[in-house]
Amino acid sequence: MLNVGSCLWPHFRVVQVYGANTGVGKTVVSTLLCRALRELLPAHHKVRYLKPLSTGPARDADDGHLNLFTGIGVSTRCLYQFPDPVSPHIAAQVPGKVRLRDSELAQSVHDELSAYSKEGEGIAVVETAGGVLSPGPSGALQADLYRPLRLPVVFVADSRLGGIGSSISAFESLRLRGYDIDAVLCFDGSRATNLEYLREYFRIRSVQTFGLSEPPRRNDDKDVDRRNTKEYYTSPDHAKTFERVVDTIRRQHRRRIKDIDSLPGRANKSIWHPFQQHQLQSEKNIMAIDSAYGDFFQIANIDTTRSENQPGKGTRLTPQAPVLRPAFDGSASWWTQGLGHGNPKLSLAAAYAAGRYGHVMFAGAVHEPALLLAETLLQNLRNPRLQKVFYTDNGSTGMEVAVKMALRASAQRYGWDSTSDEILMLGLKGSYHGDTIGVMDCSEPSTFNKKVEWYRGRGYWFDFPTVKMRRGRWFVEPPTGMEAEFGKSRSFESLHEIFDVNKRDSSRYEAYVKATLERLSAEGKKFGALVMEPVILGAGGMHLADPLFQQTLVDVVRKNPRLFGNKTSPTTFPAAADKHSWTGLPVVFDEVFTGLYRLGRFSSASFLDVHPDISVHAKLLTGGLVPLCTTLASQSIFNAFLSKDKSDALLHGHSYTAHAVGCNVALESLLEMTGMEKSGEWAGFQRSWTGGDAFRRIQPDSGNQRQQHTSVWSMWSSHFVSELSQKGTIDSVFAIGSVLAVSIRDQAGSGYTSTAAVGLQKQLLEKAGPHGWVVHSRILGNVLYLMASQTSKMEMLRAIEKMLLEAL
Amino acid sequence: MLNVGSCLWPHFRVVQVYGANTGVGKTVVSTLLCRALRELLPAHHKVRYLKPLSTGPARDADDGHLNLFTGIGVSTRCLYQFPDPVSPHIAAQVPGKVRLRDSELAQSVHDELSAYSKEGEGIAVVETAGGVLSPGPSGALQADLYRPLRLPVVFVADSRLGGIGSSISAFESLRLRGYDIDAVLCFDGSRATNLEYLREYFRIRSVQTFGLSEPPRRNDDKDVDRRNTKEYYTSPDHAKTFERVVDTIRRQHRRRIKDIDSLPGRANKSIWHPFQQHQLQSEKNIMAIDSAYGDFFQIANIDTTRSENQPGKGTRLTPQAPVLRPAFDGSASWWTQGLGHGNPKLSLAAAYAAGRYGHVMFAGAVHEPALLLAETLLQNLRNPRLQKVFYTDNGSTGMEVAVKMALRASAQRYGWDSTSDEILMLGLKGSYHGDTIGVMDCSEPSTFNKKVEWYRGRGYWFDFPTVKMRRGRWFVEPPTGMEAEFGKSRSFESLHEIFDVNKRDSSRYEAYVKATLERLSAEGKKFGALVMEPVILGAGGMHLADPLFQQTLVDVVRKNPRLFGNKTSPTTFPAAADKHSWTGLPVVFDEVFTGLYRLGRFSSASFLDVHPDISVHAKLLTGGLVPLCTTLASQSIFNAFLSKDKSDALLHGHSYTAHAVGCNVALESLLEMTGMEKSGEWAGFQRSWTGGDAFRRIQPDSGNQRQQHTSVWSMWSSHFVSELSQKGTIDSVFAIGSVLAVSIRDQAGSGYTSTAAVGLQKQLLEKAGPHGWVVHSRILGNVLYLMASQTSKMEMLRAIEKMLLEAL
Repeated sequence: MLNVGSCLWPHFRVVQVYGANTGVGKTVVSTLLCRALRELLPAHHKVRYLKPLSTGPARDADDGHLNLFTGIGVSTRCLYQFPDPVSPHIAAQVPGKVRLRDSELAQSVHDELSAYSKEGEGIAVVETAGGVLSPGPSGALQADLYRPLRLPVVFVADSRLGGIGSSISAFESLRLRGYDIDAVLCFDGSRATNLEYLREYFRIRSVQTFGLSEPPRRNDDKDVDRRNTKEYYTSPDHAKTFERVVDTIRRQHRRRIKDIDSLPGRANKSIWHPFQQHQLQSEKNIMAIDSAYGDFFQIANIDTTRSENQPGKGTRLTPQAPVLRPAFDGSASWWTQGLGHGNPKLSLAAAYAAGRYGHVMFAGAVHEPALLLAETLLQNLRNPRLQKVFYTDNGSTGMEVAVKMALRASAQRYGWDSTSDEILMLGLKGSYHGDTIGVMDCSEPSTFNKKVEWYRGRGYWFDFPTVKMRRGRWFVEPPTGMEAEFGKSRSFESLHEIFDVNKRDSSRYEAYVKATLERLSAEGKKFGALVMEPVILGAGGMHLADPLFQQTLVDVVRKNPRLFGNKTSPTTFPAAADKHSWTGLPVVFDEVFTGLYRLGRFSSASFLDVHPDISVHAKLLTGGLVPLCTTLASQSIFNAFLSKDKSDALLHGHSYTAHAVGCNVALESLLEMTGMEKSGEWAGFQRSWTGGDAFRRIQPDSGNQRQQHTSVWSMWSSHFVSELSQKGTIDSVFAIGSVLAVSIRDQAGSGYTSTAAVGLQKQLLEKAGPHGWVVHSRILGNVLYLMASQTSKMEMLRAIEKMLLEAL
Repeated sequence: MLNVGSCLWPHFRVVQVYGANTGVGKTVVSTLLCRALRELLPAHHKVRYLKPLSTGPARDADDGHLNLFTGIGVSTRCLYQFPDPVSPHIAAQVPGKVRLRDSELAQSVHDELSAYSKEGEGIAVVETAGGVLSPGPSGALQADLYRPLRLPVVFVADSRLGGIGSSISAFESLRLRGYDIDAVLCFDGSRATNLEYLREYFRIRSVQTFGLSEPPRRNDDKDVDRRNTKEYYTSPDHAKTFERVVDTIRRQHRRRIKDIDSLPGRANKSIWHPFQQHQLQSEKNIMAIDSAYGDFFQIANIDTTRSENQPGKGTRLTPQAPVLRPAFDGSASWWTQGLGHGNPKLSLAAAYAAGRYGHVMFAGAVHEPALLLAETLLQNLRNPRLQKVFYTDNGSTGMEVAVKMALRASAQRYGWDSTSDEILMLGLKGSYHGDTIGVMDCSEPSTFNKKVEWYRGRGYWFDFPTVKMRRGRWFVEPPTGMEAEFGKSRSFESLHEIFDVNKRDSSRYEAYVKATLERLSAEGKKFGALVMEPVILGAGGMHLADPLFQQTLVDVVRKNPRLFGNKTSPTTFPAAADKHSWTGLPVVFDEVFTGLYRLGRFSSASFLDVHPDISVHAKLLTGGLVPLCTTLASQSIFNAFLSKDKSDALLHGHSYTAHAVGCNVALESLLEMTGMEKSGEWAGFQRSWTGGDAFRRIQPDSGNQRQQHTSVWSMWSSHFVSELSQKGTIDSVFAIGSVLAVSIRDQAGSGYTSTAAVGLQKQLLEKAGPHGWVVHSRILGNVLYLMASQTSKMEMLRAIEKMLLEAL
C-alpha cells in the first residue's frame, strides 16, 4: 500500500540527482557533493548516498564508486541491483520473477529515507539512473515514478555537444511534472560552451548553475585511472564550488519549509476564502497544500490540537516530524478530480494547446479542440435531442446560459412578455445550480442564497422522495410528513431495483405531480423550465433522489403542455412529427456534478432514462486542471434565438469562451475515461455490486427499449456500505459511482449548519491509518461524503473504508 | 517585417526534420526520405531539401551529403552557412557582422518555401540543426524560432543508450510549443531497445514510429566510407519502410487540410457561438483558426467573396494558394492577450502547476501560486484600501462577487431589509460588467440584456462626458443635448492635459452629480454601490470617459453619505480615523478590461487617482491561457461578512476557485509585464506621445500628492491617431495604452446594431498588406477597435497604422 509522503524533514535534508541524459556525470556530481557535505557538515550529521536502482555488475555500481572516493563518513546504499547492464525496464525482466512495481520502488525509497531521518540530523543524496525520463523497472518514466516523493532536484546538465538543447528539454520534462530544481551543475567542457548558455538560461528562471571542471578521461590502467580520479575529486577548485552548492541546497531547504510554514498565516491575511466565515477562521485551520499527486494531497503536518501553537511557526508534532503528510483527497478536490492529481498526460495536453494557440477568440471563429470536444460530448451523451454546444467557464455560468436558453424558448412559445410576466422555474427542493445570482434564483431560499441581497427565488420546488440505505436495507423514503402524497417508506432488495425505473409503478408520483401543477397553473403561475440535478442533488446536501420521481416529473411536464401555456404561437410550436422538440417545458439537466462518470456513467440522465433538452457539464470535464463548462441544447431550443435581428441572439460569451487549453484538456480527460470504461477498468468495483449482499437480484437487460443501462454500482464496496449503515451513529448512507454519502444522526437537525459530522471529519484528518496517511474529507451539514477519483485503486478505497469504520 | 504564414499548400508539402539530440541521424533520415520521395513521386513533382542553418566547413555540410547520396532529381539548398563547427549561437558571432535575427531566419525559410510552392507540385524536407532545443544564431531555441511556421515534424529519435528518455523529453518540448508530429523514426540499435519502447509510447499517442537499420560506422578510408554509405542508402529494406513513411506524411498532410477545410462546416453544425445571430451565420463566415503565434492567427485562407463556394470544400483563391494565411490578432484575442500567442514560458508555467498540483480545492486550504498571486496583486495595485483577494473564474463572476460584497456592506451599514428594499446600483450609461444575470442587472437596459427574460435593470446610470480626438484635436464632449449640465465641448492641448485631473476644475461636474443624487435620494431610491469601469467603458461601445467626471463621481459619493442612508448602525460605521473605510457607498471598479497594462499601467484606477474599495481583474491576468478572475476588497468590506454565523459568510466559490494552473500562469504573466515596465520596454511608444504633435505640453510631476503618474501614452503613435482623425469617414478616434478606437460616421446612429464599421473590418481582413498578412479586428457598432498585445513590436503596429490609413 502506497505511503509516500513528501520526504521533507526539518533536520534531515534530501536531494535527488537527475541527469539531463545518461552519462552526463551524475555519479561524479554525487560523489563531489557527498564529499563536500561530509567536509562541511558537523561530524554528528549523517551523510547518506542512496542509489535506488542500479543496472550492470555490482562491482561497477555507483555506490561502490562512492564508497571508494568519499571515504568514511558517507554511508551508501543501493536498493535494487540488476546485473544486466541495460536500461532498468529491460534489466528488471528477470525470468520467473515478478517485476518490481513503481509503487514498491517509490515506497522503498520513502521508507529508506524515513529510516534515515529517524537517526538524527543529516542529508541524503538520491541518485537516479539514466536521464530524467529513462524508464524504470516497470517501464514507467523515472520522473513519473519518483514523482510521489517530489524531492528537490540537483540537476546535472549535459555538457556535451548538443547538451544545451537536451538539458533544457529534460528540465522542461521535470517542470511539467511539478518538480522544483534546487541547483544545476554542468561540466565546463572544452569544446561546447553549454555552461555559459545554461547559466544565463537558468538564472532568468531563478535557478543557480554551477560549473565544474571535467573529470579525467578513463584510463585503461586501473591504477592510473584510480589515481587520476582521486586527484580530480580532491582538487581544491571543487571545494569552493561545492561550498556554494551545499549552501544553495541548505537555503532552498530552509526556504521551502519556511514557505510552507508561512502559508496559513499569510493566507489568513490576504485571502478571502470561498464559503468561509472568517470570524471562525484562524491560520490554524487553513490547510497548507504543498503539492498533490494521484489521490493524495501533501499537506502541512501541523499539530492542530495543541493550544500553544505559535502563529507562523508551523508547530509540528515533534521537532523531527515530517513537514508534510499525505492526505487522501476525499472530496476529489471539490468534485473535480478524476484522473489523479499531477497527471502528466493532462499537463502536456494543456501545454500543447497553450503552445499551439494561446488564446483563440471564439466569436465567429473555431479551433480544433473546441470542435472536437463538442462533437465528442454530443456523441457520447447519446441524447438525440442535443445538437448544439455552448461554452462557458464554470457550472454556474453554464447554468446561467441554460436558464437564458430555456426562458427564451418558453417565453417565445407561450407568448409571455418577460418585462411584465414573472417567469418561474420548476425544480426540486434543496437544489443548487451555482453561485451567480441568476442561477441562485433557480433554487428555493436556503442558507446559501437567502442573505444575498439581490436573491429573489423565482420558482416552485417540489419535495421529493429520497433513496438511502438504513441498517443494511435500501429504502425509498418520502419527505417528512408527506406520506400521504408519496406513500410510505418502502424497502427494496437492491439499489438496482430502485434504479430499474421503467419496471416500477409511477402512478402515485404522476398523480401528485399533475395535481400540483394543475394547482399552480390555476394560480396563474408561469413556468419557463424544469431544472434538475439528475440522481444526486449535490451542494444542496447530497440527496439521492428517487430516480422514478425525477423521471415522472419530466414525463408529466412533457405530456401536459396545456398546464404551462394556453397561447401558442403556431409558427414556433413544433410539428408533432418532430419528436426531439421540447414539449410542456424545456427540461434542463444540471449534470455539472453528476455527469461524466462521477456516478459511473458518461451521462447521469441515463439513470432516469430521460433525454433533457438542455444539459450542462463541467467539473470532471477538465480532470481538475482548469475551469470549463459546456451547455448542450436541442435544435428546438436553438431555433428560439433565430431571427433576422442580431439582438435576438444569445448575447453571452465570456472572453475565455472555449479556451483552447480547457478544451484540449477536456478532450484528453474524456478520451481517458471513455477508454477506461471500454476496457473494463471498473469491472472489479462493479463485481462488488453484482455479487455482493446489497445486490441480490441481478437483472438482465429487460429488453425494454427505453432501458439502455442496467448497472448501478459504486467504487465503494456494497459490503462496506451495508456495514456502515448499521453503525449506531449513522442515520443513513448511500453510494453510487465514486460517491459515498454518510448521514450522521443529529438531534438538532440536518441542515447546512449542522455540526454533527465535524467530529468524524476531524478524526479522519488527524488520525493516520496504519499506512501513515490521513483522509481529507468535506462535509455538508450532517453529511460527510467521500469521493474517489475515476483512477482510484481498489486497495486504496478498501483501506479508507476500514479507516472510516474504525473511526465510528 | 515578419510574414510567416504556416507553410501549408495543397500541392506542395513540407516537413521539418527534428532530432531528439544532435548526432541522432537527422541527415541520414533526410537523405533516405528524399531518396524515397524521388522514387515514389511522379517525375514532375519537385523534391527539395532545405538546410536553413549549417555550421562547420561547407564541404562537410549536410546539403553536400544529400547531393552526393540522393542523386539527380533532389534539389538541395543551405540558407546560412557558418564555417565554425560549433553551435549556431556561437558560430553566428562573426566579428563586425550583425547577428542573424530569428525573424530574418524564419522569414527566409518561409520565403524559400513559398518560392518552391510556386514552381508546382512537390515536397520540401527542412532539416534542423542539432536537437529540438539547440540554440539558433540569436541564442533562441530552435523549436521557438521556427515556431511561426509550425511545420509538421518528422522526428528522429535517439537510438543510443539513454535515448528513450531524451527522445521523450524532446518530444515533450515540441508538444509544449504546439508542434504536431507526423512520424517518428528510430534506428534499430543493436544494444539499446529504444525502438521497441518508443514504438509503443508513440502508438498510444497516435504517432507512428518507423524503425530502420543503423547506418554503417564511419570508415577512415574515404572511398570505403562512401561505398558503405551508398550501399546503406540503396538497401532494399529502406524502400519498404520509407514507402510507409511517405504514405504517412501524405495522409497527415491530406488530413490536416481536410480538417481545416471542414472546421467551419462542422462548427456550424455543432457549435452555438457566443454573441452570434445564427440565422445570419453560415459556415462561410466562420473563421477557422489553425494556430496562433505571437501577434498572429493562422486562419483558413478562404475566398469569402466568391458566391460559388462549396460548403465544406474550403474554396481557396487559387488551387495553389496557401491553405492558411496570417492575420494580425487585432482584438488581442478578445482583449485577453498580452504576451503573444503560444508563449512557451506561459505554457510551461501552466504545465508546472498542473504537474505539481492538478486541482487543489480551495475551501479552507491554500497553495503557493494562489497566495503569491494575491500578494503580487495587492502589492502592485498600490491601493492601501485593498486587503483581501477573492478568486473566481471570469470577469462576470468576479463582478457578481463584487456586487454581493458591496450590497452586504451597504445594506448592513444603512440597515436595509434586502427582502423588501430594492437596492440599486449607481453607474454610468453604456456600462457592461459581464454576461451573468446578476451583473447584467447592474447595467441599464441595452441590446445586450434587454431581451434576457430575467433581466431587471437595478440602478441609476449617469450620462457622462467623453474624450475623443476630432480632426487632430482632443476634446471633452458632453453627451448629446446635455450641454446645460456638463458644459460645452471643450478642446485640450493634449490627452495628458485631460488626464491631469487634479489640475482641472471639477465644480460643474460636482454640482451636477450632487444635484442628481439629491433628487434620487428625495425620491427614496436606495443605492448599494457605485460601480464603474475606469477610463474606458469597453463592451458597451468603447467610450473613453472623461476621467475627471469619474473622479468627481467617486468624490461626491464618498463625501456625502447622508445621501445614501439616514439610519447608520454605530457598531459598523467606521470611525473617522479609519481613512481606508468606505464612506457614502462602496466604490467598485471593474478593471477586467482596462487593468493590468491594457492602458499602459498596472491599475487603470490610477488614471483617476482614486482608490476603489473593491477592484476586479481578469482577461490580461492570465495572458490569454485560461480563465481566472480576482476580486479585491478592503478590510471594511470584508468586515461586513464577519459574524459568529456561518451563513453570514460570502457563500460563493466555484469548484475551480483559485485553480493552481491559472494562478501560476497569472503570476508568470504579471512578472513578465511588471518586468517590461521596469526595464522600459515601452519607452519607444511613450516617446511618440511625449515628443509628438498630439502632446505638445509636457508636464513634469506636479508635486501634487495625489498625482502618482504623469504619463498617458499609447502603443499607437500620436501622429497616426491625429492623421486618422482627419479622414473624412471618421467621426472621432482615441488611443490609450494598447487600445485604438475608431468611430466611423454613421447617419443611422451609433449603437451596437450599426453596421458602419463592417466594410472597414472586412477590408482589413481580406486585403493583405505589402507584407502578405491581413488584420483581424472586431467592431462594436460603428466603432472599429484595434488592440495590441503588450509585447507587440513597434514596426508591426506602424505597418498596421499604414494599412488602416490606406483602407480609409
